[in-house]
Amino acid sequence: MMLVNGQAQEYIAVADRGLQYGDGLFETVAVNAGSPRLWERHRRRLASGCRRLGIGEIDPDTLWHEIREVCSGVDKGVLKVIVTRGAGSRGYRPGPAARPTRIVATYPWPDYPAAHWQEGVAVRMCATRMGRNAALAGLKHLNRLEQVLARREWDDPRIAEGLMQDEDGHVVSGTMTNLFIADAGRLMTSPLTACGVEGVMRGVILDMAAESGIACEVASLTRQELDRATEVFVCNALIGIWPVQRIEQREYAVGPLTVSLGERLRVYLRDGNSHGAE
Amino acid sequence: MMLVNGQAQEYIAVADRGLQYGDGLFETVAVNAGSPRLWERHRRRLASGCRRLGIGEIDPDTLWHEIREVCSGVDKGVLKVIVTRGAGSRGYRPGPAARPTRIVATYPWPDYPAAHWQEGVAVRMCATRMGRNAALAGLKHLNRLEQVLARREWDDPRIAEGLMQDEDGHVVSGTMTNLFIADAGRLMTSPLTACGVEGVMRGVILDMAAESGIACEVASLTRQELDRATEVFVCNALIGIWPVQRIEQREYAVGPLTVSLGERLRVYLRDGNSHGAE
Repeated sequence: MMLVNGQAQEYIAVADRGLQYGDGLFETVAVNAGSPRLWERHRRRLASGCRRLGIGEIDPDTLWHEIREVCSGVDKGVLKVIVTRGAGSRGYRPGPAARPTRIVATYPWPDYPAAHWQEGVAVRMCATRMGRNAALAGLKHLNRLEQVLARREWDDPRIAEGLMQDEDGHVVSGTMTNLFIADAGRLMTSPLTACGVEGVMRGVILDMAAESGIACEVASLTRQELDRATEVFVCNALIGIWPVQRIEQREYAVGPLTVSLGERLRVYLRDGNSHGAE
Repeated sequence: MMLVNGQAQEYIAVADRGLQYGDGLFETVAVNAGSPRLWERHRRRLASGCRRLGIGEIDPDTLWHEIREVCSGVDKGVLKVIVTRGAGSRGYRPGPAARPTRIVATYPWPDYPAAHWQEGVAVRMCATRMGRNAALAGLKHLNRLEQVLARREWDDPRIAEGLMQDEDGHVVSGTMTNLFIADAGRLMTSPLTACGVEGVMRGVILDMAAESGIACEVASLTRQELDRATEVFVCNALIGIWPVQRIEQREYAVGPLTVSLGERLRVYLRDGNSHGAE
């Protein structure tokens, strides 16, 4: 089901700046038993993104009402929320009158094999790089050609994800996931201050690590650090945590930190934190 | 007037990857007496962009027919052509079945003061940078948040354009124009191999310079070179050439190379080159 500004429709105006310039943001949310998981975290990221891009405020109650409507009856699925700067006249300059467009829609749950969680996934290094831009870094905005080109690099269904480097060669994230590595009981993940998306699940994992006393360094990752790591995992709001079994030719065991965080995450998502309330 | 895949309508599917990911390209074309100026150059850039992004081929005759239809009766206006990868399911990976979406639409001619061409324009340096990414550099793709954020930086109508630097501090282009500087009878313009859009008018000017024996170096521009330059101008397919009168506090005279190229351009656009045939 899809609602555009509260109306049941599946189209938008060509004049919408979301199409014209990718001038907007989105959220991809897991839906369980009619309820959007970790919504409070998604809502906060969306609101923060709107502030950073100068997109008009979205009334949270209106949006929540629309989300409840499209998620109703969805046992297991995906909610996608898109907010654009709205329709405008031609030209990069946003008009003063632009009113944001809200799109909420549900999609089928992606059918990943159970082995992705248990045995881990094979991952490739993508040739497509991420451009560095502090003004856009962290945002889940609609300018996603880099991810599209990276995802076009492979067809092999045995490869579940591709890792992307920035123009300086730092390993930033997967095309659709954030990346964590572990070495000597210590976690590391990329700061996302130059590029990449600040994933909601990455935030949950950072919080869980802090609460559990697991040291976690947020710092740029090199290929060498990836090679040296004893554990690697990727995460996003839909999949939670997938251990990485292999990056190109380098193999990794599913290690104790990954297993422990995976178990904590299952408890966290089950025990009343599913809306992200702290 | 607007046509979407040949149909008179002003909306597209939310599922279109142009909206979902900015997965597409566009052209902005001057229309004179019902005819799109320099169309052959625009068409070549669009086709080259589709090849680089792996977007399915657009039949040039179908597109030309649609363009003639929307431009018919437009004495002076703007044609915008958008081509996206088409509708698809959720996820960055393009489906094998994606058929490109064609949008052609006309807009009013922007009402710039005549002084912009005669006396030149005042220009600012934008704080928003351009991320460097060789895979996207040169393309007029739909990921344009950097230009939107740069254009949001000022409201002063006396400032006609803003110049953007890349993350390394090189001056790449304006938000909607390409940039040329002149020093000691020699032109310089940015190579656009790391970021920026390869403008059609920039191509015309490079060709005119070559034919006229004007030396032109395509090389990265520093702020120092901009300060040292004796002439600066910006260009695009709609405006042709605007001399730059001032960048922040530094003033420039409208110099002989700018005047000479402006005159050659008027002749070029008048004498049978208006469709871009060489």
